[in-house]
Amino acid sequence: MSLIDDVMKEVNTVMGLVDERQIDAAEALIKKEQRIFVLGAGRSGLMAKGFAMRLMHIGYTVFVIGETITPSIQAGDVLVAVSGSGKTGSIVELAQKAKADGVTVIGVTSRADSPLGELADTTLVVPGATKAGDGVQSIQLLSTLFDQSVHITLDVLCLKLSRRDHISNDSAKSTHSNME
Amino acid sequence: MSLIDDVMKEVNTVMGLVDERQIDAAEALIKKEQRIFVLGAGRSGLMAKGFAMRLMHIGYTVFVIGETITPSIQAGDVLVAVSGSGKTGSIVELAQKAKADGVTVIGVTSRADSPLGELADTTLVVPGATKAGDGVQSIQLLSTLFDQSVHITLDVLCLKLSRRDHISNDSAKSTHSNME
Amino acid sequence: MSLIDDVMKEVNTVMGLVDERQIDAAEALIKKEQRIFVLGAGRSGLMAKGFAMRLMHIGYTVFVIGETITPSIQAGDVLVAVSGSGKTGSIVELAQKAKADGVTVIGVTSRADSPLGELADTTLVVPGATKAGDGVQSIQLLSTLFDQSVHITLDVLCLKLSRRDHISNDSAKSTHSNME
Amino acid sequence: MSLIDDVMKEVNTVMGLVDERQIDAAEALIKKEQRIFVLGAGRSGLMAKGFAMRLMHIGYTVFVIGETITPSIQAGDVLVAVSGSGKTGSIVELAQKAKADGVTVIGVTSRADSPLGELADTTLVVPGATKAGDGVQSIQLLSTLFDQSVHITLDVLCLKLSRRDHISNDSAKSTHSNME
Repeated sequence: MSLIDDVMKEVNTVMGLVDERQIDAAEALIKKEQRIFVLGAGRSGLMAKGFAMRLMHIGYTVFVIGETITPSIQAGDVLVAVSGSGKTGSIVELAQKAKADGVTVIGVTSRADSPLGELADTTLVVPGATKAGDGVQSIQLLSTLFDQSVHITLDVLCLKLSRRDHISNDSAKSTHSNME
Repeated sequence: MSLIDDVMKEVNTVMGLVDERQIDAAEALIKKEQRIFVLGAGRSGLMAKGFAMRLMHIGYTVFVIGETITPSIQAGDVLVAVSGSGKTGSIVELAQKAKADGVTVIGVTSRADSPLGELADTTLVVPGATKAGDGVQSIQLLSTLFDQSVHITLDVLCLKLSRRDHISNDSAKSTHSNME
Repeated sequence: MSLIDDVMKEVNTVMGLVDERQIDAAEALIKKEQRIFVLGAGRSGLMAKGFAMRLMHIGYTVFVIGETITPSIQAGDVLVAVSGSGKTGSIVELAQKAKADGVTVIGVTSRADSPLGELADTTLVVPGATKAGDGVQSIQLLSTLFDQSVHITLDVLCLKLSRRDHISNDSAKSTHSNME
Repeated sequence: MSLIDDVMKEVNTVMGLVDERQIDAAEALIKKEQRIFVLGAGRSGLMAKGFAMRLMHIGYTVFVIGETITPSIQAGDVLVAVSGSGKTGSIVELAQKAKADGVTVIGVTSRADSPLGELADTTLVVPGATKAGDGVQSIQLLSTLFDQSVHITLDVLCLKLSRRDHISNDSAKSTHSNME
């Protein structure tokens, strides 16, 4: 039997456990007139960046915490914080600080009962295996299954946003970087 | 019907078209004693970075073209270049230059008959929709389906490498950044 | 004699050769209602990023080519491209493409008669030693003297912009990232 | 009078206050057989990256905290942490954690009596104005003067290392990225 099949079984299992109503709840918090900030470390951070890039293509004002031109985050902004365990030190601390400053926090984590899950205004639970040992078990290393499932989950959120906002593929293409 | 289901159908379709023997051919070219460089732009670049990070966890010497501490690439090194269309200008140019310098090139693209596919020593064809309109059609924007499928395909390659090299989850965990 | 003194002599020599009217010419091209994009490779790229970060603090809409949320560059935008030799392949190609698309290009280079210097709408000549062997000779390696002098030159440009726009230190501080 | 002259006066003043023996003390802690990690936020982070890139050119094994392929830091490694105020939350916390794990910490800051200055094994004091209001006063915004002076100070350290290690310009050039 192929390893592709084994891995796809895991991804299908986790995606079957993602509650689409949580994606809808996150969608309702993301509005054109707000600034969206994304935050994540390691491979979770790469997933957060992929989400940010697509939000930009759809027409949102979005920033990645830690990149060059990211301004201060303020009350009224939205923060999307990704952490598999929901316990990554720097992520939880910054999300707490943002929350205290009046920022709306969307948590993306494998555990609703984690520090990130508990402080967030709304939480997207993606129960893929993480390096802390949470979620659906996996033959893959570390948080691989979580990363894969977060990738798809955030892309579904983008698809919903693009439909809500009537953004066509051509419109997204015209915003896509032309300096590659 | 849920959009999660719609998207997973697309991902399952593309992954069903990935030829696992191509993953095995790429695996055979990646060796502990070589340096591995990864290259990609946009969301393809993020997938390349995720692959590089996991290779590091497994114990490889790996560099991301464009990051701070990346040295010159030399004959005998391996370059993994990711481009959905296989035509991204900077990616194809750098891959050509590397190839001419004696670097082994692994192409990851939706089309075997693209410039990247044709110059590469071996090609991993991941036929997800790209922003150039190639591959399995998708309800998702731009190259989303390609990105998702490349993510999983490169993770399957990592899984194969970790098994070949007898790397346990604990070993990978000890290499994972502890500064988060 | 101290190496600090030796290096400062070099920096003072180069900065004495920078023509402040060229900084003023660049200043005149940078306006609040335009989007500014910066571009550079290696240490020149880091200097470009430092400039972009400060422009953001002063209140400009600025993007770094290659970062996550950078949209397509369009006619009417401004591109600040940094290359010591003025010949870095990817920088010159992208600057040419931007110029052809109606983007205003500000070149920052050690040589006015380089490809970048010649295509740019205005050029800031910073004649510090580069790794191509141009400019004021240096005991320092590669383009170190160019990098140091570009850093200061672009900061002088920021100072001029902040005075023109009446941006106080407190205003800049309030825009500075609060997620560190 | 020109603003270039005004700014160069400030840079010369700060560099006149940098104690070259502190650079020598840092040099003594940086050895070929050790791994060097660099850490910094904002423009300080860019200066840290510029330093890391040059260390790579000289032949060191160096990593930037937060970049893709950075492994866990371990006892016996060296951490160079840059913070103008010496109080940046994430920098101080990570430096403390590293120190507790047996890592040698080199602090680069405007204040020896800051948290970073006090925990570091050795401190490079660069008393340029910071956004916290420390150091030599400046007409420039935020930590600009600190950044400029740190840039030059760390380049002097690189120059000393390259002389100690007998690294020529040609040797450094051959290690410099050839994928630009």
